[in-house]
Amino acid sequence: MPGNSFGQAFRFTTWGESHGPAIGCVIDGVPPRIALAEPDIQHWLDRRRPGQSRFTTQRKEPDTVRIVSGVFEGETTGTPLALAIDNVDQRSKDYGDIKDKFRPGHADYTYWAKYGIRDYRGGGRSSARETAMRVAAGAVARKVLDRLLPAPVTIRGALVQMGPHRIARKRWDWDAIEHNPFWCPDPQAAQTWETFLDGVRKAGSSTGAVIEVVAQGVPAGLGEPVYDKLDADLAKAMMSINAVKAVEIGAGIEAAKLSGEQNADEMRMAGKRIRFLSNRAGGILGGLSTGQDVVVRFAVKPTSSILTARKTVDRFGADTEISTKGRHDPCVGIRAVPVGEAMMAIVLADHLLRHRAQCG
Amino acid sequence: MPGNSFGQAFRFTTWGESHGPAIGCVIDGVPPRIALAEPDIQHWLDRRRPGQSRFTTQRKEPDTVRIVSGVFEGETTGTPLALAIDNVDQRSKDYGDIKDKFRPGHADYTYWAKYGIRDYRGGGRSSARETAMRVAAGAVARKVLDRLLPAPVTIRGALVQMGPHRIARKRWDWDAIEHNPFWCPDPQAAQTWETFLDGVRKAGSSTGAVIEVVAQGVPAGLGEPVYDKLDADLAKAMMSINAVKAVEIGAGIEAAKLSGEQNADEMRMAGKRIRFLSNRAGGILGGLSTGQDVVVRFAVKPTSSILTARKTVDRFGADTEISTKGRHDPCVGIRAVPVGEAMMAIVLADHLLRHRAQCG
Amino acid sequence: MPGNSFGQAFRFTTWGESHGPAIGCVIDGVPPRIALAEPDIQHWLDRRRPGQSRFTTQRKEPDTVRIVSGVFEGETTGTPLALAIDNVDQRSKDYGDIKDKFRPGHADYTYWAKYGIRDYRGGGRSSARETAMRVAAGAVARKVLDRLLPAPVTIRGALVQMGPHRIARKRWDWDAIEHNPFWCPDPQAAQTWETFLDGVRKAGSSTGAVIEVVAQGVPAGLGEPVYDKLDADLAKAMMSINAVKAVEIGAGIEAAKLSGEQNADEMRMAGKRIRFLSNRAGGILGGLSTGQDVVVRFAVKPTSSILTARKTVDRFGADTEISTKGRHDPCVGIRAVPVGEAMMAIVLADHLLRHRAQCG
Amino acid sequence: MPGNSFGQAFRFTTWGESHGPAIGCVIDGVPPRIALAEPDIQHWLDRRRPGQSRFTTQRKEPDTVRIVSGVFEGETTGTPLALAIDNVDQRSKDYGDIKDKFRPGHADYTYWAKYGIRDYRGGGRSSARETAMRVAAGAVARKVLDRLLPAPVTIRGALVQMGPHRIARKRWDWDAIEHNPFWCPDPQAAQTWETFLDGVRKAGSSTGAVIEVVAQGVPAGLGEPVYDKLDADLAKAMMSINAVKAVEIGAGIEAAKLSGEQNADEMRMAGKRIRFLSNRAGGILGGLSTGQDVVVRFAVKPTSSILTARKTVDRFGADTEISTKGRHDPCVGIRAVPVGEAMMAIVLADHLLRHRAQCG
Repeated sequence: MPGNSFGQAFRFTTWGESHGPAIGCVIDGVPPRIALAEPDIQHWLDRRRPGQSRFTTQRKEPDTVRIVSGVFEGETTGTPLALAIDNVDQRSKDYGDIKDKFRPGHADYTYWAKYGIRDYRGGGRSSARETAMRVAAGAVARKVLDRLLPAPVTIRGALVQMGPHRIARKRWDWDAIEHNPFWCPDPQAAQTWETFLDGVRKAGSSTGAVIEVVAQGVPAGLGEPVYDKLDADLAKAMMSINAVKAVEIGAGIEAAKLSGEQNADEMRMAGKRIRFLSNRAGGILGGLSTGQDVVVRFAVKPTSSILTARKTVDRFGADTEISTKGRHDPCVGIRAVPVGEAMMAIVLADHLLRHRAQCG
Repeated sequence: MPGNSFGQAFRFTTWGESHGPAIGCVIDGVPPRIALAEPDIQHWLDRRRPGQSRFTTQRKEPDTVRIVSGVFEGETTGTPLALAIDNVDQRSKDYGDIKDKFRPGHADYTYWAKYGIRDYRGGGRSSARETAMRVAAGAVARKVLDRLLPAPVTIRGALVQMGPHRIARKRWDWDAIEHNPFWCPDPQAAQTWETFLDGVRKAGSSTGAVIEVVAQGVPAGLGEPVYDKLDADLAKAMMSINAVKAVEIGAGIEAAKLSGEQNADEMRMAGKRIRFLSNRAGGILGGLSTGQDVVVRFAVKPTSSILTARKTVDRFGADTEISTKGRHDPCVGIRAVPVGEAMMAIVLADHLLRHRAQCG
Repeated sequence: MPGNSFGQAFRFTTWGESHGPAIGCVIDGVPPRIALAEPDIQHWLDRRRPGQSRFTTQRKEPDTVRIVSGVFEGETTGTPLALAIDNVDQRSKDYGDIKDKFRPGHADYTYWAKYGIRDYRGGGRSSARETAMRVAAGAVARKVLDRLLPAPVTIRGALVQMGPHRIARKRWDWDAIEHNPFWCPDPQAAQTWETFLDGVRKAGSSTGAVIEVVAQGVPAGLGEPVYDKLDADLAKAMMSINAVKAVEIGAGIEAAKLSGEQNADEMRMAGKRIRFLSNRAGGILGGLSTGQDVVVRFAVKPTSSILTARKTVDRFGADTEISTKGRHDPCVGIRAVPVGEAMMAIVLADHLLRHRAQCG
Repeated sequence: MPGNSFGQAFRFTTWGESHGPAIGCVIDGVPPRIALAEPDIQHWLDRRRPGQSRFTTQRKEPDTVRIVSGVFEGETTGTPLALAIDNVDQRSKDYGDIKDKFRPGHADYTYWAKYGIRDYRGGGRSSARETAMRVAAGAVARKVLDRLLPAPVTIRGALVQMGPHRIARKRWDWDAIEHNPFWCPDPQAAQTWETFLDGVRKAGSSTGAVIEVVAQGVPAGLGEPVYDKLDADLAKAMMSINAVKAVEIGAGIEAAKLSGEQNADEMRMAGKRIRFLSNRAGGILGGLSTGQDVVVRFAVKPTSSILTARKTVDRFGADTEISTKGRHDPCVGIRAVPVGEAMMAIVLADHLLRHRAQCG
């Protein structure tokens, strides 16, 4: 009933706060005899790590992961996998301002309203630091998919919009995402964004973004109707990421504008396999995967930590103002890309295991 | 692990197919001593009932609900509430075409891929008929909220976009929604939609829509970080409704375009209460309710059942075509409005009970 | 979080009260394409049905089961299976005494203490009538085991003790259990019991009993350490049956008296299979099945509904007395035999599906 | 669906193996603002610690617990509590024998049958070392009960039988349990046991035991019928402890011998409170607490690690023999006493939180 776990068959639980000694997770349900070592996980953590360009928070965290249980002689044993990362850069600072004031757009007020206590250091549990463990669990989920499926599933994410600036889909190039600091698949858009984001950064402001995650090679039939549909669980997974305000599958919000003729993806046989002539559905029909690419997009709001003073109140019930000092993250959406990929991998692994239970 | 239940503390499980003898649900966790009788539920079912205008499917279902257990002498007892509705209008017809062919945009192919068997009569379990039980459970959830909260929560839904036509927010009038067949809060838009939808209907086509559901009076602090955030569960709830392709909270997808200054809802004291100067967050911060209106939107795709023939394949692996005969639903989004309201009520009731467990 | 469901992968939820219109259950997670019809379930219900001898309650219930959803053209579809049984013999009577007084040894007081309301008619939800749905679900679980396992699992129960009278294990004969009204495997003991129970019955008294359930053919490796061990779930399953006060696995309580030498079941190869030289473990080691017979025993207390007046209190806080009139059940343990078998089948089916999720 | 978690509202998940770097747990659902520091947990761990007398294993573990998250400024925050204990005395040794041979009475064979891999070092995950985290979680559960209940709950365990030797109930003295190495409440029995167990120990043999755990001060109405009854969850909790083979509530297995007159605990008013004239029910009726003492007993089998060689097989399918060298634990039941207490506290805390959700 408490909420710090995700998944049912591939079930992970995270713990830890931004400025505690460490963060970690337990993953229960991992199939046995999968080769797994720390570098398998570290690889994905390194992609998410903050401070790799001037466009993300300057917190310096090596994010070195340790496997503390569940692996023996290089293979998973089927018992719980425990992972931990020590917090290193909990910069000693004066929290005086944040301690008593509720930052607008942050979880400060709501945690206080719910629990009557909050760990205000760096946002405590509500910090995006928690997402490091999602990336770690996502790395394990990828291993599970690799091991259990006959053909590999490829899961990739990209930033497709920054503030008002969208990519051009005709220029989409997956190779490009590794060559700019934004995971942008459109090299031309990446240049526009660099200028735009430098402006935002220098103004001490911030901007929102849209991320798209695509999974190729997902077999047909994954998902559990009617409440644990694949799209329902993806929506929950993505919406649970810090600062996300919208989730779309396939045509998404634009589906509202379509006619029935436009929307229904027609089918044809291609040898013995079914081929769809379009993918407005985003690879999911009736909550089950179709075998096409599974396509999810989500919108991330701009962080509310900005240099401009904003009106707020304090915990004593007085009007006041607050502005953010120190580290600054002009577009938190950038670091959400590997997190979205991880959540896709986790949802797919969970549904693959669940499918095996009922349908073999 | 199977997927036909929703909620954890207010937990309901639905059963039944479109053309089986009945549909029903079990709701477990309802607090005791709440006055409840069938008319309390029937009221909300009547609002969802098909065939009430020329713009929804002409299936004639009285949808008469029976309370089969869990109520004694007019009050809930704390034991499981079982509800059932007999199916009446399972029009006898020749299913020959649907039996072997997969309708594009429907769950026909994916159910077959998952289970190797499907009840093709009226869509079987994947039919929107299942949503009647969501509305019934939603009626019970409203009773729970009324009983447990000091002040009433008002949950209302409206259609805010039909095909390409949006309402004007400045003309929003909640009273208007009862006076047109679309739950449209903008009387002027309702007129436009009537003409538009008549055209769609006569062409044998269909159109998508966007629904907005607003809950007023939700106390601050509901939600269970970090995976069962209130917005994450709302996203799952709405995405689990048939044909939904996108879910937004507050500013939603538009949040991507905002600056940090625009996005952070400032706060001021209003007497002893906190007042927010805007509600871009849609009433949720860090996954917890803020005390503001909780605002959710979701997009419904056009139904794929249209008169125009579409390319498809059959279960023997041959290319073919299919078009829908008989009943026709030009905008399934209309009937999704009461369903969205119900899911909002259910998520709130579930989180209210969960909150009580941990935080008293 | 509420408690009317059991199992995780084979998950069933029951509803209904002793004197409501019907009782029923929903079983979610049943694998698709299993042949299933009402007689498959009715067969097992008929074995549990009350009123078949003078030694069980004289309530006359035909217990005719209906499959309301989840089966199409004679096979399970993978969607929820809903079962219902109408209550027929809710004998109209004056509940005056039970309405206000708490029967000692019954759930009257505790339901009232928990919920502040109780359906006093025939015990409401706390009645053993609920166990009919366990037997129905157990019948489905047997079908699942038959379908998924390479060799059949045989699940049988017997009464091994009535009051102070135990069977002689050397005379154990499974065929005998069908030829006496007690499910007694020892024909000689059955004769003793008949005399004993006639005395108890005529005295308006009641007696306890011990039931043993044995599953043959369970494959090795079922169970989910360390909290959902096979024996832990069996203990929960059996203890959840009305009036059960103890659960034993294998040597059970006698294990306390053994030495390590006696207790450890030695192993030898028998061809390519492992053969155990004894089965003190009851077929479970470390919470996982060993491939031997799974052996569970449970003790049922005598029903507290007796003709002798007993001291009690009423809901107004006054001392009073109560005695039971009308139907009388001198040894409720008899009817617990098919229920115990059913719970064994359910636990095994659930763990088989769970095992498939993780271990394929 | 995997099995390494227990509880629903007070939910804990353990990880770690006997000879891994550490063991730990995550407890989710702990109410906020409960004062908690490491000594509160260490106190209970110290009672369970091995090597405190010649009658328990000589493994030397300081079992120093660290709180890694979920506490801020000395109080719980409502976010996950993470606890960890480093393994210190993983004595370096040659595992050659255990590596390939399956020890009779141990989980060696069944883990191998289930997972196809096993961490054979000290039993890996199946080791009783895992129970240290149960004791730690139990310490937190006690804090929750203290904070939320108006009057304190006292939870105490005792060894009531060692091998064939039972205590005399008339000599029961709770104070005595701290003054002998067996948690024996009967000083006279403790002397008998000392002689008996020295004999067992010197013979390199082992013996079973029975533990009784009593909770005083539990309010009436805790438990969730009909599957998560308080006694059903207690049965599961105790049966999940290593080596447990039987669980009894109240009169337990002896209830089978009673008559209805003997079994029904009569009631009388004592001022405004209900007083029961006996407690055969063990404080639970219909799966709900009565307000009396909750009384649970469980039987622990003798450890199978003995000096005498026993017949077994190896993983290559050959007949062989095995005997245990090194550390020896003549009566593992002794160390199960604090574990049983902890599980009682955990079940009660879980059910208290669950009760609050539905019944306020």
